[in-house]
Amino acid sequence: MSTYSFLNDYTEGAHPRILEALTQLNLVQQQAYGNDDYSTHAKALIKEKIENKDAAIFFVTGGTQANLIIISSALRPHESIISSTLGHITTHETGAIEATGHKINTIEKDNGKLTKEDIIPVMIAHDFGPHVVKPRMIYISNSTEIGTIYTKSELKELYEYAHENDLYLFMDGARMGSGLSAPNSDMTLADIARYTDVFTIGGTKNGALLGEAIVIVNDDLKSDFSFHLKQKGAMLSKGRLLGIQFQELFKDNLYFDLAMHANKMARKIADAITAKNYKFLVHSTTNQLFPILPNDLIEKLEENFIFYRWKKINETHTALRMVTSWATQEAEVDRFIKQLTPN
Amino acid sequence: MSTYSFLNDYTEGAHPRILEALTQLNLVQQQAYGNDDYSTHAKALIKEKIENKDAAIFFVTGGTQANLIIISSALRPHESIISSTLGHITTHETGAIEATGHKINTIEKDNGKLTKEDIIPVMIAHDFGPHVVKPRMIYISNSTEIGTIYTKSELKELYEYAHENDLYLFMDGARMGSGLSAPNSDMTLADIARYTDVFTIGGTKNGALLGEAIVIVNDDLKSDFSFHLKQKGAMLSKGRLLGIQFQELFKDNLYFDLAMHANKMARKIADAITAKNYKFLVHSTTNQLFPILPNDLIEKLEENFIFYRWKKINETHTALRMVTSWATQEAEVDRFIKQLTPN
Amino acid sequence: MSTYSFLNDYTEGAHPRILEALTQLNLVQQQAYGNDDYSTHAKALIKEKIENKDAAIFFVTGGTQANLIIISSALRPHESIISSTLGHITTHETGAIEATGHKINTIEKDNGKLTKEDIIPVMIAHDFGPHVVKPRMIYISNSTEIGTIYTKSELKELYEYAHENDLYLFMDGARMGSGLSAPNSDMTLADIARYTDVFTIGGTKNGALLGEAIVIVNDDLKSDFSFHLKQKGAMLSKGRLLGIQFQELFKDNLYFDLAMHANKMARKIADAITAKNYKFLVHSTTNQLFPILPNDLIEKLEENFIFYRWKKINETHTALRMVTSWATQEAEVDRFIKQLTPN
Amino acid sequence: MSTYSFLNDYTEGAHPRILEALTQLNLVQQQAYGNDDYSTHAKALIKEKIENKDAAIFFVTGGTQANLIIISSALRPHESIISSTLGHITTHETGAIEATGHKINTIEKDNGKLTKEDIIPVMIAHDFGPHVVKPRMIYISNSTEIGTIYTKSELKELYEYAHENDLYLFMDGARMGSGLSAPNSDMTLADIARYTDVFTIGGTKNGALLGEAIVIVNDDLKSDFSFHLKQKGAMLSKGRLLGIQFQELFKDNLYFDLAMHANKMARKIADAITAKNYKFLVHSTTNQLFPILPNDLIEKLEENFIFYRWKKINETHTALRMVTSWATQEAEVDRFIKQLTPN
Repeated sequence: MSTYSFLNDYTEGAHPRILEALTQLNLVQQQAYGNDDYSTHAKALIKEKIENKDAAIFFVTGGTQANLIIISSALRPHESIISSTLGHITTHETGAIEATGHKINTIEKDNGKLTKEDIIPVMIAHDFGPHVVKPRMIYISNSTEIGTIYTKSELKELYEYAHENDLYLFMDGARMGSGLSAPNSDMTLADIARYTDVFTIGGTKNGALLGEAIVIVNDDLKSDFSFHLKQKGAMLSKGRLLGIQFQELFKDNLYFDLAMHANKMARKIADAITAKNYKFLVHSTTNQLFPILPNDLIEKLEENFIFYRWKKINETHTALRMVTSWATQEAEVDRFIKQLTPN
Repeated sequence: MSTYSFLNDYTEGAHPRILEALTQLNLVQQQAYGNDDYSTHAKALIKEKIENKDAAIFFVTGGTQANLIIISSALRPHESIISSTLGHITTHETGAIEATGHKINTIEKDNGKLTKEDIIPVMIAHDFGPHVVKPRMIYISNSTEIGTIYTKSELKELYEYAHENDLYLFMDGARMGSGLSAPNSDMTLADIARYTDVFTIGGTKNGALLGEAIVIVNDDLKSDFSFHLKQKGAMLSKGRLLGIQFQELFKDNLYFDLAMHANKMARKIADAITAKNYKFLVHSTTNQLFPILPNDLIEKLEENFIFYRWKKINETHTALRMVTSWATQEAEVDRFIKQLTPN
Repeated sequence: MSTYSFLNDYTEGAHPRILEALTQLNLVQQQAYGNDDYSTHAKALIKEKIENKDAAIFFVTGGTQANLIIISSALRPHESIISSTLGHITTHETGAIEATGHKINTIEKDNGKLTKEDIIPVMIAHDFGPHVVKPRMIYISNSTEIGTIYTKSELKELYEYAHENDLYLFMDGARMGSGLSAPNSDMTLADIARYTDVFTIGGTKNGALLGEAIVIVNDDLKSDFSFHLKQKGAMLSKGRLLGIQFQELFKDNLYFDLAMHANKMARKIADAITAKNYKFLVHSTTNQLFPILPNDLIEKLEENFIFYRWKKINETHTALRMVTSWATQEAEVDRFIKQLTPN
Repeated sequence: MSTYSFLNDYTEGAHPRILEALTQLNLVQQQAYGNDDYSTHAKALIKEKIENKDAAIFFVTGGTQANLIIISSALRPHESIISSTLGHITTHETGAIEATGHKINTIEKDNGKLTKEDIIPVMIAHDFGPHVVKPRMIYISNSTEIGTIYTKSELKELYEYAHENDLYLFMDGARMGSGLSAPNSDMTLADIARYTDVFTIGGTKNGALLGEAIVIVNDDLKSDFSFHLKQKGAMLSKGRLLGIQFQELFKDNLYFDLAMHANKMARKIADAITAKNYKFLVHSTTNQLFPILPNDLIEKLEENFIFYRWKKINETHTALRMVTSWATQEAEVDRFIKQLTPN
């Protein structure tokens, strides 16, 4: 019996239905660059889901690519984006945003979520242009980089503040599936489209081989967007590869079914950990867990499982990051739970 | 009977063996970010093919992406790249190279190929720094954007000149398969690795769903290369998608078999066109043809076939661009040839 | 008797009146960053001259700085600027524009001037976005880099074409004084303001220690401009240095008086050269001359004068570039003319 | 009697000797672009002062310009610079560094000074490339943005740590004069040259009309530096303007005499404030003071003096920023001190 990985949500390939669709449609000749029938259909399906016929939708291969194109196409050179210090763009994209010329104004937040109250001091601190950058966009994630989620009222308040202050609101949805499928989530994709200016729907971490949908709701951000895709190397000549996948994910409820499986597997692990009276670094209801376990138990678990040692808590305890996905096998979850007791 | 497309070499999906491999390996857990077993194996296969164990190899999703990362990682801000005006980076990448901060010094050449004699005047014109950029890299393509190819002696001469003048030589191999498989080509992949500093091997136009291999031969260009992949949004979390494809293409002769099919189909069309006494804009032995046909014949052909009207020649004739690929069906080629006679 | 330089128009310091003004106002406390009284007054003087009270005016230290800020603040990342191959931004600014991310679309023109007929093919060639950049601004110079000038009807036609095609028209006026003071010029600064969207008025080459005025006429280009000055390192803390100089140049006719002197000195040289039956590479009525002289005469002249060997014409003749300025001494011009006969 | 400004150290023009030198040398013909005799001589004088004949020295017009050129010429695209959150590049340059593509890794420090202990956690946090930027340079200021200074042992320790960890050390010397002239400073310019890789010597805030000297000590950072000056619009055609000023400042002890005057004036104010039992936000021995005064006293002082309200301390007290300079008149200092008592 070999080790099983809970390291992340991109350890396997794609949901079998996606490979079947790719195979079935493989030799049909199609237009290039995202103008294929499948991409068109996938966009229509998503527009229906978000209840917005006027959204502009584009498919790209990954999250960093989506983020850097959305931000650099929206901002003028002197404008900046506000993010939590935990924000993926801030910490884990090798300076991708700065490489397009823009500063990120960071805010420290333990739960990774931004509120109006967090933004106000940043705006005040930048109220003496032209000597400072001009914040013009807010970056948030749902679920966040540490598994937390926004409620509808939280998002609405942030969106309204943003619009009163000439700020765009951009939600990174690399884990949108898991976020919206969380038991305590009170939002739908249509709500996201209502209370953001632009957002992404992550495919890579939720059943696709690769792919993120960029959904632009605010008209100001739509103009010439495809030029930016091309310039940044994100326009696939075989755009069908992305169209077919999103068509498959959204032609029924597959996208959310897969996310719910991931959340369910995480919940099972979390409940078992809680039952053993272990704590968590942060309360997550999505597919990322941050349990704090004794080091000797961790060492024992590492004989059979792979996960990430996130943060040293003290001499005897460490917080882990464990991630489940659409592909997580319940038998492995059960095996993990069984081994949760120290020897 | 519907229209059949000779518009480009990315109108279909992938060679069936690739989809089969993706399906078969789909649920094996693998490391992310290109550290999967398949990518490792694919790199080993390519290193063998190019007879260079020390090359650094990376897989990315597309040609523009490969080009902008190779160039921006190699050049300092004041350095430029020399290209033909036909070079893909010059004309068809929406300013992707300039967007990373670098000027392209262009040279007009009807055949799309650069020689030492073409480069010398550019170097002389830039011999009064710091008031001008400093050329530091030469960009060539094989086959070129108009289907021509380099011979070994041409490439060697250019490479030697480049190295005597502190210039890197970068070959864009988006159509490397077709280029090296041309009947009049006298080079192998190992020759390419010998006489360039960095080159790409195109998968997208030769049987893959997507994917280009970046092969770095010159040690100077290897350092920290993966940081640039990540920063530009080119590092797939499921790098396996690219690894599996290149493993399949290079585990036997599939890559070149597919290219030879494309070339063979192009040759068949070219021979038929020549037999009718029509001319070509440029002599191509690869999978891109530029026949000059009478407008009324073109209109007739357009009822059943799709191709690109490349350039108006005179009031009665137009040069077309026709492209064949690994997926081109010989029956359609035959149908096209049959319709080559004006009514 | 030592050598005298006709190499360029920035070989001496500043017109004495400028140094006197700097000295006289030296210890008056003033606000920083261009908000001093002198800058405010200088702007008012220029607005009167251009007959446009709503123009936004900024002073910067040099031409490359002005160019890169104007262009990068106006264009979105996928937009490009059209220029003659002789344009200063194209050839002599070390890739400054590309370093801000923008491609320059170049047009070869012997006289350095662009017309509607030159621009049209560029626009046609870029009519298949998103695969190519989107031209959005035209760059011209007056006088041009080779001493030629625009007439009012030429400028008006270009401006009207630009506006019909969603292009901004930007005139680099590094040598605006000499250009507008040429005997065959039929324009005033007010005409320039009428038929461009943004232009500069060069101080460095016309009597100032340093300094260019950026005049923005089109409202679209005014927004947040000062942020860009700051970001690119162009906002002087002691902006008074520029304000005092432009105040002095424009409080009476000094700016044009100096330019007329430069032109008059050039004319005197040109007439003498013509009288000897020598030709010119280009017909210039401004302060730059490009005479074609026999090499032995050039060698003789070089014993006493400094100028630039611009271009080899044939084995026995070379075209020179000779430049006069506000500071050129007539006695040296006479001495030069006397030596114009080969031994 | 009007208001007198302690707002900053760039409220007046230049020291009279500088204007006299500019006037005296005004009409001597000189080479352009910094190749004039005065720039050459000024560089020789500085090399002597720093006891380093091999340093590469360049003059530019301002601090932001110097910072962005030094940093962007030194770093590759994926490399970052470490700075205090108070660092001028971090907060007051409108994203100038990010606009060249580079992230700033920030460290919060109340005294604005960085130590080895501050840097270590940043390096640990960035020890998992390629998913994060690679810190490659440390930015410090002396005196800092809040008036504090480094001791020789502090600088030496930081420099040694930097070199052990492949980091360049860059000192922003916009207020180098005041910093090195502080009573508690134990360093000379030669020490700065010994324990940094590159630094600047600020002229603008210490007697010049404008101008910063960039001094590159580390050979790695010298290559092609002038190309970057040109590309960023920092190469003056009349470089003599900067050369003459630095020649005047460094041909005797003028540079430090002016700084000592500024410090002396600040000390006089500080002593008077202390005598009244008021406190300071930070202990400064240089020309920037941050006294905490009662709001009603501040209001009274504002009737006659201009200074900056830096930070609200509580409901009744505010910290000010007051700056003295080479031009500060002792009579005004005395007048200020006299008014220090609340009514």
